[in-house]
Amino acid sequence: MDRQLTYSVIGTGAVGGYYGSRLALAGKDVHFLLHNDYEAVRDDGLFVESVDGDYHHNDIKAYFRTVDMPKSDVVLVCLKTVKNDILKTLLPPLLKEDTLVVLIQNGIGVEDDVQKAFPGLSIAAGLAFICAAKTEPGKIRHMDLGHINIGNFSCPDQALVESVVEDFREAGIKANAVDYIKARWMKHVWNMPFNGLAVALDTTTDRLLANPGTMQLVKDIMLEVISAGNALGAQIRDSYADKMIDMTLGMTPYAPSMKLDYDFGRPMEIEYLYRKPIAIAHKHGIRMPKCEALAAMLEFIEAKHNNA
Amino acid sequence: MDRQLTYSVIGTGAVGGYYGSRLALAGKDVHFLLHNDYEAVRDDGLFVESVDGDYHHNDIKAYFRTVDMPKSDVVLVCLKTVKNDILKTLLPPLLKEDTLVVLIQNGIGVEDDVQKAFPGLSIAAGLAFICAAKTEPGKIRHMDLGHINIGNFSCPDQALVESVVEDFREAGIKANAVDYIKARWMKHVWNMPFNGLAVALDTTTDRLLANPGTMQLVKDIMLEVISAGNALGAQIRDSYADKMIDMTLGMTPYAPSMKLDYDFGRPMEIEYLYRKPIAIAHKHGIRMPKCEALAAMLEFIEAKHNNA
Repeated sequence: MDRQLTYSVIGTGAVGGYYGSRLALAGKDVHFLLHNDYEAVRDDGLFVESVDGDYHHNDIKAYFRTVDMPKSDVVLVCLKTVKNDILKTLLPPLLKEDTLVVLIQNGIGVEDDVQKAFPGLSIAAGLAFICAAKTEPGKIRHMDLGHINIGNFSCPDQALVESVVEDFREAGIKANAVDYIKARWMKHVWNMPFNGLAVALDTTTDRLLANPGTMQLVKDIMLEVISAGNALGAQIRDSYADKMIDMTLGMTPYAPSMKLDYDFGRPMEIEYLYRKPIAIAHKHGIRMPKCEALAAMLEFIEAKHNNA
Repeated sequence: MDRQLTYSVIGTGAVGGYYGSRLALAGKDVHFLLHNDYEAVRDDGLFVESVDGDYHHNDIKAYFRTVDMPKSDVVLVCLKTVKNDILKTLLPPLLKEDTLVVLIQNGIGVEDDVQKAFPGLSIAAGLAFICAAKTEPGKIRHMDLGHINIGNFSCPDQALVESVVEDFREAGIKANAVDYIKARWMKHVWNMPFNGLAVALDTTTDRLLANPGTMQLVKDIMLEVISAGNALGAQIRDSYADKMIDMTLGMTPYAPSMKLDYDFGRPMEIEYLYRKPIAIAHKHGIRMPKCEALAAMLEFIEAKHNNA
């Protein structure tokens, strides 16, 4: 494909800020939507302290409202799923007839719900394997990993999806076009144990794996996710659980995003990380009892937190 | 039976102190083993602030070592199960040929392990439905309930077990002789959800039941226990879960014993409340996945607590 794709990033936090700035520094045309950090980033750009080398993305195209942004070929949605309701307002100004919206979000069932709100929209899933956190307005710390898998959910033009993958690669990011169902559930194999257990046990990935009981629980939850995903056709091998545990053992000790959300008083993504996958699995005849137990505990913890 | 049974109470905490003093005040010959509170109780007796009326058991037969105690017809073991190893030392001085040892303890598998240590011993299980706590040395607060079920585990003389039940009744305590397996597992239907969840979620029975998600989790765990118990022949109906939930809704908001143990830095009874029943159920072809998840989390919490 010869034409240069234009990009919008909705939700310029750690993930959106990192991928968007990498694309921009590789010469892509990237427009960033910001909210709380709008002025800081407009004035000073994005500072990224990265395990792959620090950099500063200056002269950033920062916006406070999507109505001020140009329509884009590709929209990268990097919001927390708890905010997905506002996509109904944010997305329309950015959409051309064939715009591809890539949901770089955690969880299961996200694409289905966005598709319901925008029936004709071309949607892909972005599965980001990255340890990153926003440390202050305009400052991102990229601690580990960084690769992204993109799975086509409803885009009639697979070549467009592959062009996005190519753009990520040109920006130095390991990227692959993958099967949507497989990719979503594979990502979820990591997300479902570590996010909830880190909150429920007030801990980090390394400690969960250092304790034999919780290491086994992590693995059991992973196997529940694999079993649910496979009921939907994901074709994930059980050995992938061990692979994910090995990967995590090799990672910097990490507080998953739900743990950061909880610690900073933000709502947790219990809906798409727990309740939706459990309900979808159930509909396909698969029970996820350990995930159910964890989900109920997380909801209790969130309610207690909100009433405190 | 005409002869007056003599009693020893090993572990004069809230439960042992309450039942022992009720028996003593009803004219039974009761001897109490104490440890930390020995001097306080020897000098001032036991003060019981009870929902059924306060009382003071003075002139108490208090001992610091079992070698100083008379051999008894009945030994009421009211220790935490985490201390059961010391029964090997504590019990022998109290035993006559036909002494009945009643294990008034929580959990599953307790009798089997004591029987292994004392192959010829007559053992019964005491299932105490009581909300009580020691508030300071020699002071017990009895908040709710109080009935006890006694199930014969290995006593060849069922009449002796029934005499003990009769003595409890004479002391004004609702008591019944019940089927051992059924009684142990029925009690466990309450213990397994409430103890662990109260610790993991830092909460009390009322709050667990006020939240729809954790109320469902409590019920799910109860159903796992019922299913496991029934695999061993307990014959408990699923509706017993609702009955236990209703009973708990009617109770004073309560911090179960494991929660008190955790809060006061004492070891938790994870072994007999979680690991043993899970292992026994597994051996009988029943999985208890929600209990397994909770057990792993409790072990993590305990290890973290011990390392703090």
